[in-house]
Amino acid sequence: MAKSNDWGGPNRQWVIAEHPVTTLEARHFEYREAPVAEPGPGEVLLKTHLLNIAPVMRMYMMEGGAAGEAPLEIGEVIHGRGVAEVIASNHAGFAPGEFVQGQLGWQTWKVSRMTDAEKFRRLKPHGLPIHHALTVFGMTGFSAYCGFFGRGQPRPSDAVLVSGAAGGVGSLVVQMARLHGCAPLVGIAGGPEKCSLIEKLGCDVAIDYKADDVAAAIRESFPAGVDLYFDNVGGEILEAALGHLAPGARVVLCGSISEYQRQKPFGPRNYTNLRRANADMRGFFVYNHSAEFDAAEAAMAAWLTEGKLKAPVDVVSGFEAMPRALMDMFESTGGGKRIVQVVEGDIACY
Amino acid sequence: MAKSNDWGGPNRQWVIAEHPVTTLEARHFEYREAPVAEPGPGEVLLKTHLLNIAPVMRMYMMEGGAAGEAPLEIGEVIHGRGVAEVIASNHAGFAPGEFVQGQLGWQTWKVSRMTDAEKFRRLKPHGLPIHHALTVFGMTGFSAYCGFFGRGQPRPSDAVLVSGAAGGVGSLVVQMARLHGCAPLVGIAGGPEKCSLIEKLGCDVAIDYKADDVAAAIRESFPAGVDLYFDNVGGEILEAALGHLAPGARVVLCGSISEYQRQKPFGPRNYTNLRRANADMRGFFVYNHSAEFDAAEAAMAAWLTEGKLKAPVDVVSGFEAMPRALMDMFESTGGGKRIVQVVEGDIACY
Repeated sequence: MAKSNDWGGPNRQWVIAEHPVTTLEARHFEYREAPVAEPGPGEVLLKTHLLNIAPVMRMYMMEGGAAGEAPLEIGEVIHGRGVAEVIASNHAGFAPGEFVQGQLGWQTWKVSRMTDAEKFRRLKPHGLPIHHALTVFGMTGFSAYCGFFGRGQPRPSDAVLVSGAAGGVGSLVVQMARLHGCAPLVGIAGGPEKCSLIEKLGCDVAIDYKADDVAAAIRESFPAGVDLYFDNVGGEILEAALGHLAPGARVVLCGSISEYQRQKPFGPRNYTNLRRANADMRGFFVYNHSAEFDAAEAAMAAWLTEGKLKAPVDVVSGFEAMPRALMDMFESTGGGKRIVQVVEGDIACY
Repeated sequence: MAKSNDWGGPNRQWVIAEHPVTTLEARHFEYREAPVAEPGPGEVLLKTHLLNIAPVMRMYMMEGGAAGEAPLEIGEVIHGRGVAEVIASNHAGFAPGEFVQGQLGWQTWKVSRMTDAEKFRRLKPHGLPIHHALTVFGMTGFSAYCGFFGRGQPRPSDAVLVSGAAGGVGSLVVQMARLHGCAPLVGIAGGPEKCSLIEKLGCDVAIDYKADDVAAAIRESFPAGVDLYFDNVGGEILEAALGHLAPGARVVLCGSISEYQRQKPFGPRNYTNLRRANADMRGFFVYNHSAEFDAAEAAMAAWLTEGKLKAPVDVVSGFEAMPRALMDMFESTGGGKRIVQVVEGDIACY
């Protein structure tokens, strides 16, 4: 075991032991400890408080990399975002006591030059728990807000369908669609618990893709077709939505979780339905919308403070639980955004 | 032989003698003559000037019908669109001397109630040859104009790719992209003759899909990616374009000719590329844009009059040549839209 130093180390890390091809397993991960490095000139020492868990991380771990992250060599710290506290700083832009969110990797400490590539963003002081930085004030919230409002261009009269509706992005989109007045508002999720959750968040109808005939349920719920489909999953559910579009419909392609576990890429065989409906399939990648983040954050902070928006978190305790927390995601997830709490005690407010 | 009447008949007709199964042959057609009917109350008497020839007509002739037209019984007049002159009218909406285009059938005269099902459209007086009603002022031209400008929202700075670029719609889109200033402008067509044609129409580069590696040629022609792809073909060529999109790209789905020959529907396996590029795939169906037809016609009439737009026709003379004109299409086609001129003399202007 590496020695602790003055900062309270060691730096605990999860590195990649083997590239996954299909299902993630424990043997793909390896635990290591290293000394906490001293920040040099222009550098910041960051202490990880929270780490994000998301299905896309399996893609980062694949040979050759994927999903926009650099390929990981065997033995490298796994990519991952999180919230960290600035403990020491030789960087003019960051002061001790501030919090940042960005690319920390699966480790408890990081020394960083805070380059653009790491996509660090300073938390704004809202007096709210810092976990919001990984939901509404992070890429999840910005994906929901910029994807729904920016790419979806919802009209209050729109009939809206959201897949992955119990997930991090989906559960926010459901609430935003409800705040915007969209009806009917229909969510798709897996299992009765998630379906119950999305009904509480505002769905008029919850379709359980594990139990229901999704295409039939969509036809029944949307007598005049779907105006806006917010797609977090791809695959057969995307095809079911493409099969029942209203004229001028918009399909926002935000995620395709069903792709991450597939061997062969899947193409929606009925994409030509877009023609008859004069409909759009609009690709969305959150980092293309960074100019809109401040406005999105201000709007969502107001909703949170007023109690109009909820962003539940599914907190897994302890850095050692990282691999299991990720592997479990592909089977079932509780309600809310999954995060791993790395430091002990209550989650800090800032 | 049926007698002529005051209108200058007889009504010469081509009817179906036998349903084709594979290749069209002369025995599938039968020539007949009938008296020209008198228009009753609310009816119009139309004299055919031009008839359209298109490969899809073989589909109309198949047992059980196809391609959206009613099945043809043995002995019925073959379906076909054309341009006709109003000779007599008991219909408040149409006056003698006007021209219309719409569903005439393979005959030299028609008495019609001008129902919606026949999709008649009055020619506007541009002082141009009436054959333009079957190209730029018909669904071909409206598909090109409304698809390119309405759905494609081209910027003059856009790098544009057009597939099926030597076809009816594609050859017009190429010219419109050139008129709009788009560069580079790249077309995809099959074979050296068609590639030479699209270069003459304004393409900076012509990709021959029968000889070239399409994906490699796209990469080479678009160093910064494709801003606007006008898709007439679908299939692997759509995938090649999706593989090389610029940020904010638009893919207009106008046609998918490659689908018509496929046994199983095809989905573009790399559609998720739309996400990283924040790109749109926009479905287009010309009949959804009928409110824009008048504006499209005015714009295209101006270009035609100024000599900036060309819509070549391949004129076959004489009503008796109809079956041969269609059968020949499956072997080779000259440049331009094939039409049969039914009346003698020069093609009328209106």
